[in-house]
Amino acid sequence: MTFRATVLTLHPEMFPGHLGSSLAGKALERGQWSIEPVQIRDFASDRHRTVDDTPAGGGAGMVLKPDILAKAIDHVSAGDDRPRLLMSPRGKPLTQTRVRELAAGDGVVIVCGRFEGVDQRVIEARELEEISIGDYILSGGESAALTLLDAVVRILPGVMGNALSGTHESFEGGLLEYPHYTRPQVFEGREIPAVLTSGNHAAIEKWRHEQALALTRERRPDLLQSEQD
Amino acid sequence: MTFRATVLTLHPEMFPGHLGSSLAGKALERGQWSIEPVQIRDFASDRHRTVDDTPAGGGAGMVLKPDILAKAIDHVSAGDDRPRLLMSPRGKPLTQTRVRELAAGDGVVIVCGRFEGVDQRVIEARELEEISIGDYILSGGESAALTLLDAVVRILPGVMGNALSGTHESFEGGLLEYPHYTRPQVFEGREIPAVLTSGNHAAIEKWRHEQALALTRERRPDLLQSEQD
Repeated sequence: MTFRATVLTLHPEMFPGHLGSSLAGKALERGQWSIEPVQIRDFASDRHRTVDDTPAGGGAGMVLKPDILAKAIDHVSAGDDRPRLLMSPRGKPLTQTRVRELAAGDGVVIVCGRFEGVDQRVIEARELEEISIGDYILSGGESAALTLLDAVVRILPGVMGNALSGTHESFEGGLLEYPHYTRPQVFEGREIPAVLTSGNHAAIEKWRHEQALALTRERRPDLLQSEQD
Repeated sequence: MTFRATVLTLHPEMFPGHLGSSLAGKALERGQWSIEPVQIRDFASDRHRTVDDTPAGGGAGMVLKPDILAKAIDHVSAGDDRPRLLMSPRGKPLTQTRVRELAAGDGVVIVCGRFEGVDQRVIEARELEEISIGDYILSGGESAALTLLDAVVRILPGVMGNALSGTHESFEGGLLEYPHYTRPQVFEGREIPAVLTSGNHAAIEKWRHEQALALTRERRPDLLQSEQD
């Protein structure tokens, strides 16, 4: 079963973007996933191909029209039950758990917002799941869609092959990753911590866990807190 | 002054990626910002152009060698004081505040990790600022770098022009954005909330603030909490 991504956007030329290279790109060529960018403007009904209008109640920016977007969504998702996502800074923060769930499914339909926003009624009527990739503002949903797809595609069966197998993964254990070291033994006067070259595997595991815990405490105490929830 | 981004990567072909299109792409053509992807492998010293090695202490994956990466960093950042970022899930979460700070500077040097990680000693010796764009795992730092650059470039002077001016921005006020509506007045039986077409600007402002507050409480209580900190 091929993971099928359909992306509704005003900038179809942005896809597959950097996902056309490296492992994701090779997997795309092998047909292990597919991506279909769809121009929302093709569903406009006037000759100017208008997709947006001024916000009701006033304010700056433009709002994507509900009727046009609904037509586009219905066209690409008729008869399939892939999750319909809307990339939006108002969304629920993306987590590795949600990435795994999405990767286990048949694919996704992703709506990329531009302008000020998307009419709330089409979000509700088409049950769009609003997802945020982080607390910063992007020029549109396209960067967010590519980032989400990168996270999903890398864990599809066969995509990364041995590159992934057995790898420790940040967040998978609820902690940030411990620090890594490799040769040379001495770099600009800095040595690899002695424990790592001791051959004592129990001591190495213990050191790594302590380092991961200390780093998480320092940088992301919120991760430790949510562990306790 | 042009904002200058230098990206150290094993996949220079991924840049500028989707940032070559739309407003960021036009600004790139106009010279309002620049991006120079640099192949880390060019700084390897053996004939196999080796950039990574097995992790000290054992484990899966490979680690970027400190000496090679240091050479690459020194080459591209000699004589300039741009911030040196390392995109990493272990990093400090990217915020709109940091985006604004970066956009106010001369540019950035961004190191994109691949494999298991980057030798800790080069992170310390070159004072790399580890930044995470979210709690999920990507195939490498490239998606993260493009996302960060999208956020930064859109607020550079002149890039978005009127598209940006006066726009309400999520997070800028510490709350998620209120819902948007536009024509038609009725969409699939759903009406635009009456207050928005009332012409009563004070009532509209009040409604929007209440909606933003309710949405933030529901989806992101953490944002309200950090307001109080």
